[in-house]
Amino acid sequence: MKLPYSLFLFAGLSFAGNVERWGVFEAALQGPSAGNPYLDVRFGAHFRLAHRVVDADGFYDGSGTYRVRFMPDETGEWTYSTFSNVDALNGKAGAFTAVAPSPGNHGPVGVRHVSHFGYADGTPYVPIGTTCYAWTHQGDRLEEQTLLTLRTAPFNKMRMCVFPKSYTYNANEPVFYPFDRDANGKNDLTRFNPLFFQHLEKRIRDLQALGIEADLILFHPYDRWGYASMPAEANDRYLCYTIARLAAYRNVWWSLANEWDLVKTKTLADWDRFFRIVQESDPYGHLRSIHHSKVMYDHSKPWVTHVSIQGSDLEESRNYVAQYKKPVIYDECKYEGNIPKRWGSISAQELVRRFWLGTVNGTYVGHGETYLDPNDILWWSKGGVLHGESSKRIAFLRKLLEAAPAEGLDNLSTYYLGAGQEGRYYLFYFDANQPAEYEFSLSPKASYHADIIDPWEMTITPVAGIFTGKFTLKLPGKPYLAVRFEKAREGTSE
Amino acid sequence: MKLPYSLFLFAGLSFAGNVERWGVFEAALQGPSAGNPYLDVRFGAHFRLAHRVVDADGFYDGSGTYRVRFMPDETGEWTYSTFSNVDALNGKAGAFTAVAPSPGNHGPVGVRHVSHFGYADGTPYVPIGTTCYAWTHQGDRLEEQTLLTLRTAPFNKMRMCVFPKSYTYNANEPVFYPFDRDANGKNDLTRFNPLFFQHLEKRIRDLQALGIEADLILFHPYDRWGYASMPAEANDRYLCYTIARLAAYRNVWWSLANEWDLVKTKTLADWDRFFRIVQESDPYGHLRSIHHSKVMYDHSKPWVTHVSIQGSDLEESRNYVAQYKKPVIYDECKYEGNIPKRWGSISAQELVRRFWLGTVNGTYVGHGETYLDPNDILWWSKGGVLHGESSKRIAFLRKLLEAAPAEGLDNLSTYYLGAGQEGRYYLFYFDANQPAEYEFSLSPKASYHADIIDPWEMTITPVAGIFTGKFTLKLPGKPYLAVRFEKAREGTSE
Repeated sequence: MKLPYSLFLFAGLSFAGNVERWGVFEAALQGPSAGNPYLDVRFGAHFRLAHRVVDADGFYDGSGTYRVRFMPDETGEWTYSTFSNVDALNGKAGAFTAVAPSPGNHGPVGVRHVSHFGYADGTPYVPIGTTCYAWTHQGDRLEEQTLLTLRTAPFNKMRMCVFPKSYTYNANEPVFYPFDRDANGKNDLTRFNPLFFQHLEKRIRDLQALGIEADLILFHPYDRWGYASMPAEANDRYLCYTIARLAAYRNVWWSLANEWDLVKTKTLADWDRFFRIVQESDPYGHLRSIHHSKVMYDHSKPWVTHVSIQGSDLEESRNYVAQYKKPVIYDECKYEGNIPKRWGSISAQELVRRFWLGTVNGTYVGHGETYLDPNDILWWSKGGVLHGESSKRIAFLRKLLEAAPAEGLDNLSTYYLGAGQEGRYYLFYFDANQPAEYEFSLSPKASYHADIIDPWEMTITPVAGIFTGKFTLKLPGKPYLAVRFEKAREGTSE
Repeated sequence: MKLPYSLFLFAGLSFAGNVERWGVFEAALQGPSAGNPYLDVRFGAHFRLAHRVVDADGFYDGSGTYRVRFMPDETGEWTYSTFSNVDALNGKAGAFTAVAPSPGNHGPVGVRHVSHFGYADGTPYVPIGTTCYAWTHQGDRLEEQTLLTLRTAPFNKMRMCVFPKSYTYNANEPVFYPFDRDANGKNDLTRFNPLFFQHLEKRIRDLQALGIEADLILFHPYDRWGYASMPAEANDRYLCYTIARLAAYRNVWWSLANEWDLVKTKTLADWDRFFRIVQESDPYGHLRSIHHSKVMYDHSKPWVTHVSIQGSDLEESRNYVAQYKKPVIYDECKYEGNIPKRWGSISAQELVRRFWLGTVNGTYVGHGETYLDPNDILWWSKGGVLHGESSKRIAFLRKLLEAAPAEGLDNLSTYYLGAGQEGRYYLFYFDANQPAEYEFSLSPKASYHADIIDPWEMTITPVAGIFTGKFTLKLPGKPYLAVRFEKAREGTSE
């Protein structure tokens, strides 16, 4: 049974009857606007492909409009039927065709090879994240500038808060508030503000168009509006509403919190419940993590898909991979900058060093930038433009990692910091060490080309010869260099 | 009762009837040379000043000569009488006058102010050590070159092994062996070689003349002669003999081992026993420590005077001070050099950084240098000349520390790495941080001059003004800088 397309509304999307695989299908229906639709109305749809059924919650978008979104993960003829406790929204049926994705649409990112990531279409994904916590709360002018910066920046993940931020260098009011407020600024936590969420969605789509994952922080402690201290039922409703709105965007990740242990109004049991709510509400199983300040969450809990770390111990970061058997991302290893805070004043060299230390430990590292600004526009929170020296070196690293084996780089138990895939690819980082020569021990089952890499100067210098097994290589005797070995093609000779 | 000086023999010493306070008094007597004097003869002396008695063991020095040495720690008229199981050595009496020390003789070093050091005369001692493990086994030519280097180097402590060393870059035979050997190199562990010890003593005196403490390593695992695997009774006899010979030298420290946990022939109970033997045999209570590789000894044991650390975690080194309430010395935080070993190839910048990190944590750091050499003469083991760039920066730091409060620098719980004495002196190190400004919070009970210090460029740049309490200082926005505050003299104004 195929229904006429006139039944469907594809609000804000550029396609008509066809939806890309991992694109967003959206159906909009008119329903009641009286009472409190956020509390009173249940609405959603069953999406079907042959005998498979996926349920998606819908949401009220204001002005009597109800929407349900769906991200088809398979091509084919999908049908759906709505369900609701309101007649006008119940039992409406429709269909659409999920077609092959356009170039650049690789689907959502998931965990691959234990401690690495990949897109749903099989393309490897190497997270090279940055952080602009409150960038969506700065008004269009600055937000557009941030997007312009991101167009040429090396980042494919953005760590960002749903709620606005109140903190040092963050004194400004947001443009939109997530809940209705009265003239005195008192929140009505039972009524969401559709404009707030429509704006957030727009920015998530903007990031998607740039190939950037939105690592959405659902709660954080930096608050003066009351969003960090809502009662349990408001928190839970907020999670369900947010997930109903956003889960169909393929580039969304759920970060339960920034510095969860600094949110003094919530218990560990609350965080466990939030994880369960997110897991139960999200039909697509987007990535889930939680970020700490001093007290680490138990990342071995089954709902945690990857380990989000605040820390500077990149030299030892392989231990977390060994412990959790999950991907490890140092989302916060301190920021390049010059503010009078220890977390916001490491040199570009030090941040680049940390990226490399994380890499050869088989983990991933995030960028952030905090240079003093007369208008308090620090990239780390508000976005804008980059002033630092690390991002171009991070771009160099990203290119290098994206040319590495698709399985990712696993830490190797070698004397120097090294990662790779045995017999195929090795990357060693010498950190503050400056040996004039070094004995390497690679799998003798293959032969390798060698390159000496200067992560700061961004040079890759091939070494003459083909190497295998145990051998000693002369090195430049300069600190912070790396050496890469790649398997030589069959028949290659010196 | 004053005895005629003709009774005394002051072999090898340049004074006659007078001995400096903390100098070495020595009496030599002729006794039996038949049998095995090392096993058969007990010999020693009771030294008396008024009603105080200090017992010192003597030792057999070959050719029928028996010596007993004594370091008087008080000026005055000392008498002594020998004791022995051999008549010729028993009951010989004598006297000498302990006079005021000459300039440069400050007495032995001991623990002061919980986690710092001082000489017996009250002069502060800031340990700035280096390491030449096997320098006394290299022959006079190289040893004299080492001493010439030390004459202008910044070091006031030398970490050195009693036994020769067998290891990478250490393939040569020593000039002297500590025990008699037969033509096949088989040791007679019951017979010490006086020439070996006479040579060692000469080098300890050479160091003393340069104001350098000899941090003597009594056991180590790098061995091909059998010294690391002697039976218990030989170990114990070796300790007693060595201490009887050397304890009277004021610049001797006892380091029970280098990398004790790599000496597989000895148990933890052996090490405890060694400590007790050293403590019981040494009349002067010279400093005692033990150095590890991976397994840390329990430095809280009462016979450990200070904590000797191998490690790179200088950022956190204050924790050891807090834990042990003893001075902490990172004798081995890796070496400046370029050999293909992680422990021997850190850059000069990194070693200088570690010295500063240790300093602002209220701990001390040791130097070592391992540059490849065509003749395998690496400073870290054989001495010779310095090739590196760190030692002049270490000299700069030493000068600065020796101008700091006599009580030493204690780590302060401030946001940046800082040490000092509240209200008088503060030293902050910014490591890889490069803040453009920083808010300091000093005791408001005094006012302070400020200097910006560049540890690598070795510059001290005074900041205009006088500061107190909480204030913000503009900084150069460059990593690896330090800021020092010194209490302004009364009446000083801006």
